[in-house]
Amino acid sequence: MRRNLLLIIEYDGTAYHGSQVQKNALGICQVIQDALQKVLGVREDIVACSRTDSGVHARMFCVNFYTDRDILCVKMKYAMNFHLPWDIRVSDCREVPHGFHARYQARGKRYVYQIWNADYESPFLKNRALFYRYPIREELLNRACQDFVGTHDFTSLCSAGSDIEDKVRTITQCSVSREGNMVLFTVTGDGFLQNMVRIMVGTLLRISEGKLAPHAIPQVLAKRDRAAAGITAPACGLYLDYVFYDWDFR
Amino acid sequence: MRRNLLLIIEYDGTAYHGSQVQKNALGICQVIQDALQKVLGVREDIVACSRTDSGVHARMFCVNFYTDRDILCVKMKYAMNFHLPWDIRVSDCREVPHGFHARYQARGKRYVYQIWNADYESPFLKNRALFYRYPIREELLNRACQDFVGTHDFTSLCSAGSDIEDKVRTITQCSVSREGNMVLFTVTGDGFLQNMVRIMVGTLLRISEGKLAPHAIPQVLAKRDRAAAGITAPACGLYLDYVFYDWDFR
Repeated sequence: MRRNLLLIIEYDGTAYHGSQVQKNALGICQVIQDALQKVLGVREDIVACSRTDSGVHARMFCVNFYTDRDILCVKMKYAMNFHLPWDIRVSDCREVPHGFHARYQARGKRYVYQIWNADYESPFLKNRALFYRYPIREELLNRACQDFVGTHDFTSLCSAGSDIEDKVRTITQCSVSREGNMVLFTVTGDGFLQNMVRIMVGTLLRISEGKLAPHAIPQVLAKRDRAAAGITAPACGLYLDYVFYDWDFR
Repeated sequence: MRRNLLLIIEYDGTAYHGSQVQKNALGICQVIQDALQKVLGVREDIVACSRTDSGVHARMFCVNFYTDRDILCVKMKYAMNFHLPWDIRVSDCREVPHGFHARYQARGKRYVYQIWNADYESPFLKNRALFYRYPIREELLNRACQDFVGTHDFTSLCSAGSDIEDKVRTITQCSVSREGNMVLFTVTGDGFLQNMVRIMVGTLLRISEGKLAPHAIPQVLAKRDRAAAGITAPACGLYLDYVFYDWDFR
């Protein structure tokens, strides 16, 4: 009987050219498909919850696929982790209803961006956080980022090269907090445009540097112009943290 | 004028054969001395707060040295971080009184041992935590480890090859706690014998596995026999977390 299986995956994206299967570079989904082929004996198509850029990490990345194999979920998980490289791990495997689609059924996503804010780099965070040595006033940025919350046209915070037409997205939660030298930007929404979270971070850092007013975000959004926002922050600080479905998989 | 400078250091110990200068392998103190020589122009002796084993990490490791150079502490820090490899960082540099000795003046140390307790390895903790897949009851171990607190002869929890005579040490605090899949063992004391924290962890895991009774630690200590305790847990989970002096350097 053909079953629909969901894999919940964590990965350190440093070594990969993003999540998508590509012709000339190694994407995470290709590595997953290769491992899956070793486990199942046949190459199956997989559906991923989203795309992540080169160097971006994930604490929860979801893929689903159909199989005729009558393998137990727990065995599937161990078999996948046997064949996968150390920087990609299956944390869970679940059987899901026919028709479940990891991308279409995702109701929203939460991203976390990690900034190591000190005057020296951390030996424990190489490729895992943005190193930023100038002072960050997290309360100021936490207030400023509330202007991202709501339904807006995010053209100004989308990579200029994107060919997606509808750039309206709804952000339901946004915060900036600090734990010691680590500043965390957390954002939850129904969907995200290309580079959107990284441009949000670049824009907040511009506010932090006094180059943009703390209340400037509504104007940045209104301009619908990529040039109005800050730079695209480096990929290494970004983590896909959670994918929301109708079920809570954790 | 000859000054006494203290460097506070963080390192990922994965690539090094412990902290000490050695003849046939690269120790962290040698790398520090090499960088110091590049900054000062002369090779100075350094005094380290303690020894750590191969693969052990430090969030606070202290060394002091004397110099005639009139370099500002903040410049010293940046210059050192320029010359050091990425996995060793100077987080602070302070001028300390003549006579200050990083080892002799250390009043105590705190170690943290990280255990990733799940049925899959974390891609973010390679070489940074012990991967342990069997269930750990952290409340049970937290109660059990209270028997380490106090002044005891720790012969049973010291590497059999150690040539130190006085094996009496005072443990002032000890705990086991959990944050999600991460179990943390934290221990503070006036001093630690060779492999002592790692053998404490091995002993607690033996209790967790039911191979040793939860109240067995006093008997293990009383036997003064290395064979009475558990295995030496792997180095990768261990972090020198804090060194106590009469000043609070953080």
